[in-house]
Amino acid sequence: MTISVEKTKNPKQKPASDNLVFGTTFSDHMFICDYEPEKGWHNARIVPYQDLCVSPALMTFHYGQSIFEGLKAYKTENKKVNLFRPIENMRRLNDSCERLCIPPVDEKFGVEAIKTLVDTDRDWVPEEPGTSLYIRPFIFATDPFLGVRPSETYSFIIITGPVGAYYKEGMNPVKIYVEPNYVRAVVGGLGEAKAAANYAASLKAQVEAKAKGYTQVLWLDGVEKKYIEEVGTMNVFFVIGDEVVTPMLTGSILPGITRKSSIELLRSWGYKVNERRISIDEVYAAYEKGLLKEVFGTGTAAVISPVGELNWNGREITVNNGNTGPVSQRLYDTMTGIQYGKLPDTFGWIETI
Amino acid sequence: MTISVEKTKNPKQKPASDNLVFGTTFSDHMFICDYEPEKGWHNARIVPYQDLCVSPALMTFHYGQSIFEGLKAYKTENKKVNLFRPIENMRRLNDSCERLCIPPVDEKFGVEAIKTLVDTDRDWVPEEPGTSLYIRPFIFATDPFLGVRPSETYSFIIITGPVGAYYKEGMNPVKIYVEPNYVRAVVGGLGEAKAAANYAASLKAQVEAKAKGYTQVLWLDGVEKKYIEEVGTMNVFFVIGDEVVTPMLTGSILPGITRKSSIELLRSWGYKVNERRISIDEVYAAYEKGLLKEVFGTGTAAVISPVGELNWNGREITVNNGNTGPVSQRLYDTMTGIQYGKLPDTFGWIETI
Repeated sequence: MTISVEKTKNPKQKPASDNLVFGTTFSDHMFICDYEPEKGWHNARIVPYQDLCVSPALMTFHYGQSIFEGLKAYKTENKKVNLFRPIENMRRLNDSCERLCIPPVDEKFGVEAIKTLVDTDRDWVPEEPGTSLYIRPFIFATDPFLGVRPSETYSFIIITGPVGAYYKEGMNPVKIYVEPNYVRAVVGGLGEAKAAANYAASLKAQVEAKAKGYTQVLWLDGVEKKYIEEVGTMNVFFVIGDEVVTPMLTGSILPGITRKSSIELLRSWGYKVNERRISIDEVYAAYEKGLLKEVFGTGTAAVISPVGELNWNGREITVNNGNTGPVSQRLYDTMTGIQYGKLPDTFGWIETI
Repeated sequence: MTISVEKTKNPKQKPASDNLVFGTTFSDHMFICDYEPEKGWHNARIVPYQDLCVSPALMTFHYGQSIFEGLKAYKTENKKVNLFRPIENMRRLNDSCERLCIPPVDEKFGVEAIKTLVDTDRDWVPEEPGTSLYIRPFIFATDPFLGVRPSETYSFIIITGPVGAYYKEGMNPVKIYVEPNYVRAVVGGLGEAKAAANYAASLKAQVEAKAKGYTQVLWLDGVEKKYIEEVGTMNVFFVIGDEVVTPMLTGSILPGITRKSSIELLRSWGYKVNERRISIDEVYAAYEKGLLKEVFGTGTAAVISPVGELNWNGREITVNNGNTGPVSQRLYDTMTGIQYGKLPDTFGWIETI
């Protein structure tokens, strides 16, 4: 499938590189592709960034059949633009499609669409240290129909926007509230898909945790409210003694690409990394024994987000004296070093545009 | 808040009353009201039915912050238009708002909006027996923002459309597949809200059950996969001996208005109705003892949907020889009799427009 390109006649003013707010500014162009049962995915095109005109009966409004991905483009010192494992995003997009009854997208074509769009808006990839171009592919149901069934038509859209450095003043460990009541997802549900629905389910716990002074929630499993799942919108890792533990992918946990990359990096450095079930009791017991060395989240936005404090039913503990630990720091430095082309890409993770 | 009315200059052709397909045809007008933090809900207006122009970064596409309601308007023999317990829909809308972090709507104003819209499109309420005007209020997040937090702005929209008789050739008991793997919702999640997200979570099980020849799935609880929750998009009742049982509202079950009305009617007739936990094992054990007399779903679309067959892990049972039972039939006749003004409204459920 070829991608037609219609360039904007009215380029927007770009925001200053030192004043980029995540998720509010969008580049000049967007990618769109349509799905109909007879035609499959067709009419792939890059057009000026613009509003969409949709029916008020659009199935997405009513039944939430919508999925997305998120990744970034990084400008290197020699003005190249790097993508980090984009094929992994397209594989996960298709896994989400499968769970939500959405027709799959050719994965290589999806990467091609991302590259063509980023190349078209190459000037929108910011250059200040730590900045990047956030890329948001998403697919949503477009039938104008009220009735619960999968849509017959869809739009696959990619939008992008420049985002600032996540850590302007160095890594900053966060306070996390262990959520005792609300559940993000349960095995048999949508948890392992990057579905809009999962984020709707997370809002109230997040709002209540923020009101209590916490940055994010730590989600426990929906069956026993015991086993750790994710932290906020990130996967989570624990350094306990000489073991690095992250919850195994049971079906209710998002299979993060930064999670996967962290596991691969840590193993390459000789760390003992275990993907297994880990209970919140075990984390607190390890703390009591002095074995809980680090806790950190992994995700596209922050890459690595160290956790400095946990509150589980009023039991507050401080991790690593509230400081960023060596494992978190090394992962962050290595991952961002590879992304910005400052370190060799020994794993073959980078695709250059 | 006053509601302005802009009438269409191009009324659409109405479909024939004997050829109405659910969810595909929409009336000439729609209601819209906007929310901004400074203004609250404002600019309530009825306008010609039209497409919406929205940002591709619309939060609903990405994070699924969307809820809805469904009810019907019924034309009586003397050309009045009846609504069935609309204030209950608005109460539930606000319960959904609360769970999804959406600002509440004044409930009486919501009913007023429905009445004004239906009155504007009064000619769209069909007259053939069993037909009605389906009414779909919904609220969705409208911030053009990528980032997981509740939206700051929303649209509250009501659209309507004529729908045909659910049972054109008499009530027809359906075949139901007891879903052993997929989970619709779990306690702590969104199950008791009428959230778009819940319907996204239901699609795959529904598609797979249909492929096996079943009309709907029977959902079990997400923790033990044992206790009965709902059937498809309806609540479910079991007549076991002289007891009528429906699952209690534990937090993961939608509090249906037809469910509530059925309980109230049955109790007024002297039936012993229990809202309690009921396991699928109990249902099958009752069948083995010859005590399982009827199974039926309750919902706005069908009112009452008798279940003729169940399949639980390959164990197929036939309920009431596959026929509609007397409890199902009496509930259906009474509820529709009240809705269409053929029976006295002894409970004060009807609001006439």
